[in-house]
Amino acid sequence: MKLLEERILKDGLVKSGNVLKVDSFLNHQMDIALFQEMGKEWKRLFADVPVDRILTIEASGIGIAAVAAQYFNVPVVFAKKTQSINLDGSVYSTKIQSFTHQRVYDVIVSRKYLSPGDNVLIIDDFLANGCAVEGLLEIVETAGAKLSGVGIAIEKGFQDGGKRLRERGIKLESLAIIDSMDAESGSICFRNQ
Amino acid sequence: MKLLEERILKDGLVKSGNVLKVDSFLNHQMDIALFQEMGKEWKRLFADVPVDRILTIEASGIGIAAVAAQYFNVPVVFAKKTQSINLDGSVYSTKIQSFTHQRVYDVIVSRKYLSPGDNVLIIDDFLANGCAVEGLLEIVETAGAKLSGVGIAIEKGFQDGGKRLRERGIKLESLAIIDSMDAESGSICFRNQ
Repeated sequence: MKLLEERILKDGLVKSGNVLKVDSFLNHQMDIALFQEMGKEWKRLFADVPVDRILTIEASGIGIAAVAAQYFNVPVVFAKKTQSINLDGSVYSTKIQSFTHQRVYDVIVSRKYLSPGDNVLIIDDFLANGCAVEGLLEIVETAGAKLSGVGIAIEKGFQDGGKRLRERGIKLESLAIIDSMDAESGSICFRNQ
Repeated sequence: MKLLEERILKDGLVKSGNVLKVDSFLNHQMDIALFQEMGKEWKRLFADVPVDRILTIEASGIGIAAVAAQYFNVPVVFAKKTQSINLDGSVYSTKIQSFTHQRVYDVIVSRKYLSPGDNVLIIDDFLANGCAVEGLLEIVETAGAKLSGVGIAIEKGFQDGGKRLRERGIKLESLAIIDSMDAESGSICFRNQ
């Protein structure tokens, strides 16, 4: 998606350790007009699959999923990160390793909001090693719901999360895929899609 | 706001300890069409004040703020909860006591996204004792920004957060104010606005 790539080039900051800071428009300050265009683009890309529900994960996924959901006319469910849970059987849960925060979260979704037969579109801001998306996939599978696809804003194409998902035959639509970036020069190379 | 009150009556669950569960439409599963109506209503209520920026706090505030922001044509900044921060001077920070989770969070907003002279509208899902909003107010004041008002989805009118904000002369618009509720009967009484 040209608009997002241009915005990453304009306002993204490449830091050492393969970190891309996009908190000026994506995950701290949120440019809602950009999110609308992203939502429309996902709607176009997923026009041929049924979607009853969008699933995302707190916190950075929530804003883009909420705005995007308007173009699908479906509710959003966001998975909650928690460190101490009483597993009372009312939730689906999994563990997700956070690369950024160097720790493991328990992630939960109430059984009430994900049902067998639901057609679920997963949306998130970043895809790198894929841990977050794979955790959400596990929850979708446990619920007996059907995965319609995965929509990502920015994929780090030089990490293997996207490759693994595509190899599983999952319809993955990343609006911008970064093939390489360099902290010293600040350069960012996008995959031609 | 009639639509929100009716939805609370239909789908809200009153639990003991003055807990109101609205996770089927507000803060776990999110009804985006409802959020649109809430956003339009806040726009109507804050039509006479300048708003350059909406400030909310993760995680439950993000979805409603993102959808509401479309009617104001402004970006959203969400304050981040963190437990271990390196205060390097690049952020505004405060401490917020969470009633629900019985703990204290450090809450931060990057200095880049809140500037002197900004007209800030705070939006959040719940107002009870007011700790979260007062933390955000402190950040707005520290930034030298101007507070345009506070928009809340559900105010627990039997706790004193709303009263304290109104006594300070703050323009507070809660779309539904609950004056009393009863876990045994499930009854919920709204303030006539």
